[in-house]
Amino acid sequence: MAKSPETEHPVKAFGWAARDPSAHFSPFNFSRRATGERDVQVKVLYCGVCHSDLHMAKNEWGLTQYPIVPGHEITGIVTEVGNKVEKFKVGDKVGVGCMVGSCRECDQCTNDLENYCSNFILTYSSRYTDGTVTYGGYSDTIVADEHFVIRWPENLPLDAGAPLLCAGITTYSPLRYYGLDKPGLHIGVVGLGGLGHVAVKFAKAFGSKVTVISTSINKKKEAIERLGADSFLVSRDQEAMQAAAGTLDGIIDTVSASHPLLPLISLLKPHGKIVVVGAPEKPLELPVFPIIIGRKVIGGSAIGGIKETQEMIDFAAKHNILPDVEIIPIDYINTAMDRLLKSDVKYRFVIDIAKSLKPE
Amino acid sequence: MAKSPETEHPVKAFGWAARDPSAHFSPFNFSRRATGERDVQVKVLYCGVCHSDLHMAKNEWGLTQYPIVPGHEITGIVTEVGNKVEKFKVGDKVGVGCMVGSCRECDQCTNDLENYCSNFILTYSSRYTDGTVTYGGYSDTIVADEHFVIRWPENLPLDAGAPLLCAGITTYSPLRYYGLDKPGLHIGVVGLGGLGHVAVKFAKAFGSKVTVISTSINKKKEAIERLGADSFLVSRDQEAMQAAAGTLDGIIDTVSASHPLLPLISLLKPHGKIVVVGAPEKPLELPVFPIIIGRKVIGGSAIGGIKETQEMIDFAAKHNILPDVEIIPIDYINTAMDRLLKSDVKYRFVIDIAKSLKPE
Repeated sequence: MAKSPETEHPVKAFGWAARDPSAHFSPFNFSRRATGERDVQVKVLYCGVCHSDLHMAKNEWGLTQYPIVPGHEITGIVTEVGNKVEKFKVGDKVGVGCMVGSCRECDQCTNDLENYCSNFILTYSSRYTDGTVTYGGYSDTIVADEHFVIRWPENLPLDAGAPLLCAGITTYSPLRYYGLDKPGLHIGVVGLGGLGHVAVKFAKAFGSKVTVISTSINKKKEAIERLGADSFLVSRDQEAMQAAAGTLDGIIDTVSASHPLLPLISLLKPHGKIVVVGAPEKPLELPVFPIIIGRKVIGGSAIGGIKETQEMIDFAAKHNILPDVEIIPIDYINTAMDRLLKSDVKYRFVIDIAKSLKPE
Repeated sequence: MAKSPETEHPVKAFGWAARDPSAHFSPFNFSRRATGERDVQVKVLYCGVCHSDLHMAKNEWGLTQYPIVPGHEITGIVTEVGNKVEKFKVGDKVGVGCMVGSCRECDQCTNDLENYCSNFILTYSSRYTDGTVTYGGYSDTIVADEHFVIRWPENLPLDAGAPLLCAGITTYSPLRYYGLDKPGLHIGVVGLGGLGHVAVKFAKAFGSKVTVISTSINKKKEAIERLGADSFLVSRDQEAMQAAAGTLDGIIDTVSASHPLLPLISLLKPHGKIVVVGAPEKPLELPVFPIIIGRKVIGGSAIGGIKETQEMIDFAAKHNILPDVEIIPIDYINTAMDRLLKSDVKYRFVIDIAKSLKPE
């Protein structure tokens, strides 16, 4: 008989889990493996609340293993290290992002692109190499192979910085890979949520002019005054969209609801690129003629490799890039999820695990 | 009152034109401008028949000016040059492709990307700078600014080589631009028509392994034995498509009928690219999750600039790359169009203008 989550490993752990697609969270006792020779054990201090956490808790992608303890924007302090660990010592500040494993041998892994390894292991609701299910950062402790642990810069806050581990790398990596990181470019950011608001900050730090494209004029003031965007377009304002046609070098499209691509393609200069990082369930309509005549590109991007995640964290620390967050206690998580569904957060919830998560 | 096509210019010209969307071609007397100081006058010897000629003759893109004399895969001999012409002299072999003008000043033009200039002038059924309509190569003579005229290598046949001026550059340019020109890559070519068969030849010349993807098994033998492809996939053979999943670095998609992208996306390795050069009228369905998780790209590409077209022609001459053609007389053009519609040609019709076009 398979062991229960509470007894399968030797180290007691406690978190909040959803038991079924109702996605209602409640306290959950489980366990963590003993710290292996290349493992780092981390006391979780903060954990960001990503929209993926909600998708997964509801099993909207059909991948979920219940009970699910989400959380892949994890910061904390090293509490134990294995005897072959080289990068970390007890007391170090660290982060754990979306991945805790990969094959380490394929073309992707050997090129620091573990995120594109076909056997990469998600931080939660995935099968680890020992066959047990992974549990994320809505919990008091986590253990991970040091390769998948990020060094945390001294000057980067552990609370507001936590969302960089997913929202940050998800927008930083495509700006880099698609060559949208050059000073003087004009970058569009579609959607001003957890991902979009960080995309604005990175694009500004790269020296771009940034235009936020949103369905709602309500976000204009904050996009410009609070986040530092240079201009704002309401996607339904056809006159303004027309006037902005052919002005953007690239667009980071963070919207996960179904939406038309043609107006965005029209905003691009020739050779411009749209990178989609939000994942609508249904296919989008791709008009072909407009991408042919301007040699335009629609590309995807998924988080980033560990090396690039470290680079992104160091870049954020150097350029004072921090997500805007609302710190919440763990027992607020069900309310937070309701608000997240309504985009009622500026722009990321971060759970104060250390202060609020108390074993029952 | 506007002058007629026959009297608006001083140089008599004769060709075959379609007068309306029935796209029936018949003899047509018109005129060409006098050779300007930077112009080259060309006696047309051969002209390829591109599927665009048929789309345009039927006004399927809503751009057509009747009467229309198509033809943008033109080869011939220089018969006169303006006094400021530097590149050509009387008697030179030359080619004229899809463009005869552009603004020459914008970012695209100054970067040798005249094909992406928003004011570029098509070789036929477009307005020239003097306000008159352009007429293409289904005619005895053409005059063009020397900038838009291609030097023809001595060893490249003028008849079979003509389709390189559109089909050639349309497939060569994206292989170059999207980095799909490196030895050792595995390239897919979707659709084995005028564009596809040349794409196979260029990809092989770049040192790639080439897989042809087609709806019909009937093309397998010729794809491999005649064109030199390494393997062949029938797109409806789900087992074979499954077995080939994740094997291609890039795909040149030449199909202009509506078709599903997902099976092609699945054939790509991570970071793989699909370049669409055929233009389906209706939008294609773009599934987003599959391009995100593999950082895959769908891009467009439209012909190429003049500098790159010259490079492509020189490359083709050096590597003995020639389209497979069926040479026809001009009075066969209506039958040829019927056959083109049924894809009943291997793989490009070329009109022997010099031998068959006789002024009435």
